[in-house]
Amino acid sequence: MTFDETCNRISRFTTDRDWDQFHSSENLAKSIAIEAGELLECFQWGPCTDRNALREELADVMNYCIQLAQNEGFDICEILNDKIDKNEKKYPVEKSRGVSTKYDKL
Amino acid sequence: MTFDETCNRISRFTTDRDWDQFHSSENLAKSIAIEAGELLECFQWGPCTDRNALREELADVMNYCIQLAQNEGFDICEILNDKIDKNEKKYPVEKSRGVSTKYDKL
Amino acid sequence: MTFDETCNRISRFTTDRDWDQFHSSENLAKSIAIEAGELLECFQWGPCTDRNALREELADVMNYCIQLAQNEGFDICEILNDKIDKNEKKYPVEKSRGVSTKYDKL
Amino acid sequence: MTFDETCNRISRFTTDRDWDQFHSSENLAKSIAIEAGELLECFQWGPCTDRNALREELADVMNYCIQLAQNEGFDICEILNDKIDKNEKKYPVEKSRGVSTKYDKL
Repeated sequence: MTFDETCNRISRFTTDRDWDQFHSSENLAKSIAIEAGELLECFQWGPCTDRNALREELADVMNYCIQLAQNEGFDICEILNDKIDKNEKKYPVEKSRGVSTKYDKL
Repeated sequence: MTFDETCNRISRFTTDRDWDQFHSSENLAKSIAIEAGELLECFQWGPCTDRNALREELADVMNYCIQLAQNEGFDICEILNDKIDKNEKKYPVEKSRGVSTKYDKL
Repeated sequence: MTFDETCNRISRFTTDRDWDQFHSSENLAKSIAIEAGELLECFQWGPCTDRNALREELADVMNYCIQLAQNEGFDICEILNDKIDKNEKKYPVEKSRGVSTKYDKL
Repeated sequence: MTFDETCNRISRFTTDRDWDQFHSSENLAKSIAIEAGELLECFQWGPCTDRNALREELADVMNYCIQLAQNEGFDICEILNDKIDKNEKKYPVEKSRGVSTKYDKL
């Protein structure tokens, strides 16, 4: 299944259950933070030891991200590429190579 | 740009800066949680009033999710579809229509 | 200043600014997650190098926690001790010494 | 039990289980973010309906905050009061009364 088909399937899942009423952008943003916490739990005390949990938690975060994009009418590839454009300016290769310094301290 | 091309661009951005050394799966999971907090900040006191911030913060979360998937060798469409399969079993349409109840209390 | 006096000062800070209208329990829970993300940012790529930021971000998380407790009428010492009581049962010393295993897998 | 006695009890709980080895400041910061996500889950789709879960999740966040303060040798009342001092300057009563605007936009 392509990425676009997968996004359509996610949209249908919600519509079929009449869950759009719960899925305000605000509730989706909360859900992303909640699932990001569960994903982080895979690494709470060190490297992840449960690869299956990792797969599922990452899918949960991405699933809610896709729903938030759909809710807001964002084109996912467009917002990703716009942000990479911006990051390329904030982090020029020659200044940022090999350092994790934040752009405002480069 | 397609989703696959966008993912390749994200991968190249990191490699070009020799940042793979910082991007362990654990650090990426932390980064997802950090960016999810920034995304949530758009809704801290109510509906989001800065649509541009929302676009960018959502892109940041997704960007790190894509990097974590790449790091772990996960196929994004596969992990998304596997999780939807599972959710369809946990939340059958007839039992979950119109209710936000968690599956273990359905 | 004692802990109780500090809590009173936090409560007064909000009342003086007429901010109680924004500080619903839900908004405070979001604020705790947002500040927890900022705290985590101190450790995004490894050990924290900015001790002052760490102090401040931890204070921000605790400040909102105290406000949420006040909002809900919780006695902070009581909820902490009740949870420790429960954890002592979930994690008996002899079974959990030196292992980070979650209680449901002990 | 006073707040100081409660903090001592939390410290003893960890020492008794020889868990200090897992409780680096970084792992505690991750734990705070994880528990903040669980706290937020109480409000995922709207107002909290499980007051007992709310009590426990808030206690979990605060418990890890106290441990992080202990780990770093921070005096909790001191860091809270220092931050309130700072916030009083960032948010003067006359400018911030009744508005949720962030200080850099006041």
